[in-house]
Amino acid sequence: MPGRHFLQIPGPTPVPDRLLRAMHRAMEDHRSSTFPALTRRILSRLPAVVGQTRGEAFVFPATGSAMWEAALVNTVAPGGRLLAPRFGQFSHLFVQTARNLGYQVDVLEEPWGEAANPAHIEAALAADTAHEIQGVLLVHNETATGVTSDVGAVRAAMDRAGHPALLFVDGVSSIASLAFQFDAWRVDAALTGSQKGFMLPAGLGMLWMSEGAMARVEACPTPRAYFDLRPMRANNAQGYFPSTPALSLLFGLDEALTMLVDEEGMAAVAARHAHLARGVRAAVGAWGLAQCAARPAIASDTVTAVVVPEGADARQVIEAAFTRHDLALGSGLAQLAGKVFRIGHLGDMNELTLAAALAGVEMALHDAGIAVPYGSGVGAALAAWQRGRASA
Amino acid sequence: MPGRHFLQIPGPTPVPDRLLRAMHRAMEDHRSSTFPALTRRILSRLPAVVGQTRGEAFVFPATGSAMWEAALVNTVAPGGRLLAPRFGQFSHLFVQTARNLGYQVDVLEEPWGEAANPAHIEAALAADTAHEIQGVLLVHNETATGVTSDVGAVRAAMDRAGHPALLFVDGVSSIASLAFQFDAWRVDAALTGSQKGFMLPAGLGMLWMSEGAMARVEACPTPRAYFDLRPMRANNAQGYFPSTPALSLLFGLDEALTMLVDEEGMAAVAARHAHLARGVRAAVGAWGLAQCAARPAIASDTVTAVVVPEGADARQVIEAAFTRHDLALGSGLAQLAGKVFRIGHLGDMNELTLAAALAGVEMALHDAGIAVPYGSGVGAALAAWQRGRASA
Repeated sequence: MPGRHFLQIPGPTPVPDRLLRAMHRAMEDHRSSTFPALTRRILSRLPAVVGQTRGEAFVFPATGSAMWEAALVNTVAPGGRLLAPRFGQFSHLFVQTARNLGYQVDVLEEPWGEAANPAHIEAALAADTAHEIQGVLLVHNETATGVTSDVGAVRAAMDRAGHPALLFVDGVSSIASLAFQFDAWRVDAALTGSQKGFMLPAGLGMLWMSEGAMARVEACPTPRAYFDLRPMRANNAQGYFPSTPALSLLFGLDEALTMLVDEEGMAAVAARHAHLARGVRAAVGAWGLAQCAARPAIASDTVTAVVVPEGADARQVIEAAFTRHDLALGSGLAQLAGKVFRIGHLGDMNELTLAAALAGVEMALHDAGIAVPYGSGVGAALAAWQRGRASA
Repeated sequence: MPGRHFLQIPGPTPVPDRLLRAMHRAMEDHRSSTFPALTRRILSRLPAVVGQTRGEAFVFPATGSAMWEAALVNTVAPGGRLLAPRFGQFSHLFVQTARNLGYQVDVLEEPWGEAANPAHIEAALAADTAHEIQGVLLVHNETATGVTSDVGAVRAAMDRAGHPALLFVDGVSSIASLAFQFDAWRVDAALTGSQKGFMLPAGLGMLWMSEGAMARVEACPTPRAYFDLRPMRANNAQGYFPSTPALSLLFGLDEALTMLVDEEGMAAVAARHAHLARGVRAAVGAWGLAQCAARPAIASDTVTAVVVPEGADARQVIEAAFTRHDLALGSGLAQLAGKVFRIGHLGDMNELTLAAALAGVEMALHDAGIAVPYGSGVGAALAAWQRGRASA
């Protein structure tokens, strides 16, 4: 179709021209004497993205999913016990990955649309008087439901329980978009992929580890190779990688860090996402539709899952948006299939791009038999953004 | 600013990624034995863009403005007399260019916002019983006011006057966007630049000449060098150019012709522009604002000039759109400065991009003290597009 495609899934997010240009470079020798400058520019700036001043940061040619594995196999012995609230498809997959690796996972089931419940975590940890539980697996932003959990409150619950478990935080759809306080929350392992807030193609996994988590790496007996942080750390110390790095993506990451850390600044990035999300939620409200997020306090600033009315099929909205209006929306996953469509609003995003997406949603809703007044959601978003700007 | 910039001036228009990629190629020898294949792919497909089956087409490393000169100096002897309706800044500049070249131009003044008046042209030509007038200079789409003139009606007027003047048509903001019938209208010279309907950066001028116009070239005594069609024609016949061609732009033009002529097709391109323009006009109507175009029948499908209310300053709308909403709008030119802003809707354009632009206009209007209901224009456009699609 002529004209721009609107990619409003919650990742991959649109790659800005500037990052496309940064990646459009010839390959070079990753063992050269000048290569370490690139590695160091990246590794020295990655911590600032999550508010980390202690511990270490790593980059793998892999994805966020791979970082689930990397975090666990470097710190938890085979068969170790873990605790995980489950409230959406990605918290489910984090659990599933741990189980596939042979770990035992105690699952705290929460309704999809809810967030992690700190009281439930506190109770489960308090009951573990033998301190068998090695770690808590928490998805910060559940991409399937558009729900953000309160990591600080989970850490406070762990503290109240006096439990030494590590805190593993999946920040796939939060890091580099939402405020993230690695130090303040005393996160032990945070992870993401390159295709969300970093605005790059998928292909890099990023992992931030606390000093406490790193202290376990050397002695951790879990068999591992590709994700072993020992050779990665040793190579990184010299400015290199143990295997061939994904060079184009590293060139892109270097530039993305300049945009995020050096230019816009992480606080401004988070404020922008909060601002944009207010407009999206105003639109959903104006349409008279519900969000999957059960409460306003937990509604995500990076993705909004919109519930279609009883009897309607969200897949028709998504199909009409894609085939008729050149707009890609996220689908409902697992138990939410057909019930929700998702609007991604993270990464290289601004008001007018989102206004276009909301306009496309309005037409696609009509196409699927859900008649909202044309302009109602867009108008509510514009008004919210203008109010937000006036009060800023 | 983060996120995409919305370039909604009536040219340069957004360059699609596909054309950026096509242009991103190494230079090559423009005298090589394989180079003529490129020249021939371009020159063989250029005629279809304007509905030309007789005559010749040319490409210069230049702009549309240069093609005004190229058309004239190859066909009209020094000091020759020309006739031109003037109803906007670009019809004014076409006249000015001809005068700068030493031609005498009889100007038919029309109100800005009106189109060329065939009756006035007929009367002027009928009065020229000696047939001194060598050509009629007509701007097909007046970019300054958003007005499209009826070229066929002008040709009919010339016929009724029984006058042999050549018909020079500036198609800068019409060709490759609006329906253009070079043969049917018996145009003698049509011209444009690369930065509008062709979706490329500025830097190429395109000129289509009728057999009648070409018959004058050889003997035309006007001094000329760079724009001389004689060496251009001789070189083109061998697949080459007389001086170094703008290679990147030719690579882009080759691909643009594939998109326009071979894939979408010129009829569909024109239908798309008509469809998109209906939404823009619906928005302007919903805002309660007037178009510069005096009558619906002459409103342009590529650019809409919107008149701000008495006492308001359109420059404030344009400045707010640019600095606060990352949206570039066209300004009012000459006598229209401060009175109108212009929305370009041509080239690689689709509904959602325009919806975003209209959303940005709504916010910018508010910023400039012109309070239209948020979503009113966008909603009217969406409804118009959906109606148009349903009836298609």
